Amino acid sequence: MRLSDLPTPSLILDRARLKRNVARMVARAKELGVTLRPHMKTAKSAEVARLVHGGGTGPITVSTLAEAEYFAKSGFTDMLYAVAIVPAKLDRAAAIMRAAPGLKLLTDDLEAARAIAARGAALGVRFNAVIEVETGGGRAGVDPTSPELAAIADALAPAGMLAGVMAHAGHSYGCEGVTEIEEVAEAERAGVVAAAEFLRARGHSFEHVSVGSTPTALHARHLDGVTEMRPGNFVFFDLFQHGLGMCAAEDIAVGVLTSVIGHHRGRNHILLDAGALALSKDTGANRRIENVGYGLVRAPSEASPREDVAVLDVHQEHGILSARRGLDAIDPLPFADWPVGSRTLVLPNHVCMTSAMYTQYHVIDGSDEIVAVWDRTGGW
Amino acid sequence: MRLSDLPTPSLILDRARLKRNVARMVARAKELGVTLRPHMKTAKSAEVARLVHGGGTGPITVSTLAEAEYFAKSGFTDMLYAVAIVPAKLDRAAAIMRAAPGLKLLTDDLEAARAIAARGAALGVRFNAVIEVETGGGRAGVDPTSPELAAIADALAPAGMLAGVMAHAGHSYGCEGVTEIEEVAEAERAGVVAAAEFLRARGHSFEHVSVGSTPTALHARHLDGVTEMRPGNFVFFDLFQHGLGMCAAEDIAVGVLTSVIGHHRGRNHILLDAGALALSKDTGANRRIENVGYGLVRAPSEASPREDVAVLDVHQEHGILSARRGLDAIDPLPFADWPVGSRTLVLPNHVCMTSAMYTQYHVIDGSDEIVAVWDRTGGW
Repeated sequence: MRLSDLPTPSLILDRARLKRNVARMVARAKELGVTLRPHMKTAKSAEVARLVHGGGTGPITVSTLAEAEYFAKSGFTDMLYAVAIVPAKLDRAAAIMRAAPGLKLLTDDLEAARAIAARGAALGVRFNAVIEVETGGGRAGVDPTSPELAAIADALAPAGMLAGVMAHAGHSYGCEGVTEIEEVAEAERAGVVAAAEFLRARGHSFEHVSVGSTPTALHARHLDGVTEMRPGNFVFFDLFQHGLGMCAAEDIAVGVLTSVIGHHRGRNHILLDAGALALSKDTGANRRIENVGYGLVRAPSEASPREDVAVLDVHQEHGILSARRGLDAIDPLPFADWPVGSRTLVLPNHVCMTSAMYTQYHVIDGSDEIVAVWDRTGGW
Repeated sequence: MRLSDLPTPSLILDRARLKRNVARMVARAKELGVTLRPHMKTAKSAEVARLVHGGGTGPITVSTLAEAEYFAKSGFTDMLYAVAIVPAKLDRAAAIMRAAPGLKLLTDDLEAARAIAARGAALGVRFNAVIEVETGGGRAGVDPTSPELAAIADALAPAGMLAGVMAHAGHSYGCEGVTEIEEVAEAERAGVVAAAEFLRARGHSFEHVSVGSTPTALHARHLDGVTEMRPGNFVFFDLFQHGLGMCAAEDIAVGVLTSVIGHHRGRNHILLDAGALALSKDTGANRRIENVGYGLVRAPSEASPREDVAVLDVHQEHGILSARRGLDAIDPLPFADWPVGSRTLVLPNHVCMTSAMYTQYHVIDGSDEIVAVWDRTGGW
């Protein structure tokens, strides 16, 4: 089967690019002396997780219990579910632990920590809990070295359920330039290490001191005191990461294969069958790359996206490909080069959101031949 | 089963509100003297489609061939696939027609029309094609009374494949006030009727003269010359439609049930387990309702959303519920009223996008009891 045989829209994964991206992050983790626990919220694919771990299973991060169930079925036993747990989810987590005893839960709340300990005792399950600390991101987490942190650890430790501390510098996505990312990475590292030392000084022991985001993983100066990192986006990259300077446009490993379904010469645009659902409505990359809309396009046979056009508007099932620049915009577009039925790849603005709309990847590797179809999970 | 038994996030559908919304549009179609061909791109549910048609099947509109396949399996035979067809999709359409002979395809392109006629002849299938005309929306369609329209009709008619003309006034979503919507509705009606008369004067005959969007369906002054309308969003409504004045907040029939997963007192926000994937990143309603973010919230037992807070930021699996107004914003939020593990409903900014993330509706009807679980389709 070839790209030309696929229905459109379809999600295409370039395995050569994926392997290159993975090799880069594996080397980074080795250089930093930490375990790579890739965040599978981006790929949601056992094949991708195995590729990161050299063909086998290994530690991963997940964003939903549905992901944890999927990866447990695929043989992954060591998972950090990196969204704060609520008591109503503990029984489901306990069920997952039968196949994946290394499942770790996250909390930053004293009542939730008490519920973890109590429900674990009632079920006869030793949950593994990691405490989230805030290191500047402002989303979640308690302050390192705070009484709240101590109280949460004290609620978990007697039951043998304190597994570690973690931080997520999500605000690295808002940085301007590498120096600022380096500073955010250092704050993330220093904060979580301070929390670990604070708890150890109080007599606690635990295994995991965890940080992570693709930008901080790529630009941390060192990770002394940290045991693992959890980047996720790096496997595929996207226009946002490209705009942030984390990758070249040629590293973006995932695209949406779409068909030209119409021309509107009066408005000088080309209609594609990839719209808001096929691409997502994430427009974050426009903060970094002017007028990138919902995505840039490239021919499947080309390495780099075109600079002159972008998907500048979307309706539910329509993408509107238009000239990208202002005054010297191409007018008219070369409609004859884009006949109805011809195909192009749209590079995603934010690949975590775009990929979430699909249940499988069609995998290519250096040609237009589909060399594999990899499933991906979703939902909650 | 009750709401409190569901995992979060889950998609909740209030059947009483749905029935009220449906009754209103059914009455509108009757008043206007046209067939209601609801656009199932919003609900993607056979149960909802049957509810519109009084318990049976009836004419519907679909946005993908996957939807057409799903509805054909559910016994719907009369469908308009309202996205321009490309030749590579014709064999799949022909296969669907074995169960749903009333499948209608859309085109606004002469080459595509020729391909429809040729491929139909080769397959021994009489495709039904509807020609899209532009009436101001600027997305797709040929001009009514244009040589292009005549040429497309001439390509289809000899094969007996010309089924009608249609228009979609998607720009009604950009209107300011009812008077402007009435004008757009009239332009939509007049444009498509002009196209029908133009083709009839050239000797063509066909059945369908089709218009549609929720705002124009609600506010067309009359639909003389039109045979059917295709609103979709009206079954559920959302904050965008509310902001546009098309419904009351109490008409919004779908919400995302979410759990409080954390408090951040320092930043004065509450964390929910419904983030960018559970809610979508559509923020269109903010053009209409100030500071509505990714959604307003209400208790499942309340009729109306709270005015004081909104989901003002999202990460992939985190929603950040914050005080809504500027100077007199609540600070601190009443954290004690929102304990970790407590639940709320998020009303969607744009329900077509939000619902697309789920494979089923949990249906309630006047209480917190789950009275049904309805599947929904997705993908392409």
